[in-house]
Amino acid sequence: MEVYAPASIANLGPGFDVFGVALDDVGDVLRLEVVPERGVSVSVGGLEADSIPVDARANSAGAVLQHAAEVYGVGHGFHVEVEKGVPPGKGLGSSGASAAAAAYAVCRLLGLNPSRREFIRLATVGEAAVAGSAHADNVSASLLGGFTMVGNDYDVIRLEPPAVEIVVVVPDVHYENKTRLARSLLPEKVRLREAVFNIGSASRMAAAVALRDTVLFGRSICDNLVEPRRARMIPHFREVKQAALDAGAYGCSIAGGGPSVFAVGENTVEIGKAMVAAFEDAGIESEVYLTRPSSEGARVV
Amino acid sequence: MEVYAPASIANLGPGFDVFGVALDDVGDVLRLEVVPERGVSVSVGGLEADSIPVDARANSAGAVLQHAAEVYGVGHGFHVEVEKGVPPGKGLGSSGASAAAAAYAVCRLLGLNPSRREFIRLATVGEAAVAGSAHADNVSASLLGGFTMVGNDYDVIRLEPPAVEIVVVVPDVHYENKTRLARSLLPEKVRLREAVFNIGSASRMAAAVALRDTVLFGRSICDNLVEPRRARMIPHFREVKQAALDAGAYGCSIAGGGPSVFAVGENTVEIGKAMVAAFEDAGIESEVYLTRPSSEGARVV
Repeated sequence: MEVYAPASIANLGPGFDVFGVALDDVGDVLRLEVVPERGVSVSVGGLEADSIPVDARANSAGAVLQHAAEVYGVGHGFHVEVEKGVPPGKGLGSSGASAAAAAYAVCRLLGLNPSRREFIRLATVGEAAVAGSAHADNVSASLLGGFTMVGNDYDVIRLEPPAVEIVVVVPDVHYENKTRLARSLLPEKVRLREAVFNIGSASRMAAAVALRDTVLFGRSICDNLVEPRRARMIPHFREVKQAALDAGAYGCSIAGGGPSVFAVGENTVEIGKAMVAAFEDAGIESEVYLTRPSSEGARVV
Repeated sequence: MEVYAPASIANLGPGFDVFGVALDDVGDVLRLEVVPERGVSVSVGGLEADSIPVDARANSAGAVLQHAAEVYGVGHGFHVEVEKGVPPGKGLGSSGASAAAAAYAVCRLLGLNPSRREFIRLATVGEAAVAGSAHADNVSASLLGGFTMVGNDYDVIRLEPPAVEIVVVVPDVHYENKTRLARSLLPEKVRLREAVFNIGSASRMAAAVALRDTVLFGRSICDNLVEPRRARMIPHFREVKQAALDAGAYGCSIAGGGPSVFAVGENTVEIGKAMVAAFEDAGIESEVYLTRPSSEGARVV
């Protein structure tokens, strides 16, 4: 069984731990096969494959398969081959894409048809294994496609995604345990005023998606809770964001746990160039992805 | 000039200082006339008129008129007669309705056509005069009708309101300076986790309004930020809310600064009875309003 799952951007500015959106043209391919002996073996190829553990318990696809084998009482084992198309550790939901692909593949292979909630719960096991937190924003978007809103207890609302152009600029900076680091920058408590600001921006963004208002969507990429605290992870973040806005972006923020920076606008080629130039001013090379939201989530290929 | 402005419910659970919705069948009527001598005189009739100041600076309609006279350089004065249909001090946006009616009336009378932002800014002067905080959630809904989302700097998004039945139960409890008290119960800082919960619920509510999904709307009335802290203002709040949910309400929370409690569901007559009975168990009389969101805001009658 060969399955593809798209990359995703979580948070999208105001929707920390709530919003995710699947991306076109960037994703992982996963080949899953049944093997007679119990247990899960993992091999990884593709982008920065060396950086990804092949120990099944520490690999987001492997952890999902191990969990599925236990929960669903499977009498055999699995071998999984992950072909990374999503660059790991950059904020594009790399572990989420592999986890979503694994959850999708194993359910198809075993002929299971779990509820959406159970499906997402299963995929989230992969995030918990890798990132130490069972956040469901990336996996929901990778699994279901579209624009997703995560509620309590794996309850997810999925909307058709906005028809916007997205540019993602991935700076060449590296962190060990990046997701953990990104979370450690967030305080336990925040000002009520900051929370109200994000409630307002996130509500506008959700309404913009439902109304298919792409300008309102882009202008709702405003975040007073997370961005100011994670900006320090990304050298010259403020300059890069300003460059995006000056080049006509409706909005710009950090993709998930970073260090990727994404922007939404009409002319993403120009916006991307301006962002790359701003990183260059700081002596940082970066890579650009020109993409858009994807309606489709995990699927057999 | 005779103007009507509807009552409103602010916050609607998750959207503290962001959401407002105008209500049908409950509102203030305001009669505005020009008088030769400068200055603003106010008279108040209707519901609990005795509790409302007639000093123009302390009256939400009067403060708006005084401000308008100064800002727009009017060479005469105003007399305004407010006929209260919105019970004051209950969380139904009473001062906001009078302020919105005054802003609407004075602009019509003077032939002004301010931008939406300026219109809301003007109406908000009334809230600042009465409540000590220039919150725009109630006035926006009263002025524009429908479901409103307040952003920074009087920037308001208006959506057609959801087609739901709303029951509002107004317990017979009284507070001096109720809005100030309600705000004083809120801390300066809240847990990030609480904020994320409200970001999720508010986003769902905004999407539900845009999608016209009345069940999702009702089920999104979930608030971890404000409700737990203001619940102490309302004797037996938890029992009343549980009674509403047990009677089939999709959701139930405090209307604005309270002490009114509102619920959304199919059978609001039964839900309202259950809520009244729960207040009665605590020895508290209450009044019931069966209403629904109003598309129409302030208007000449």
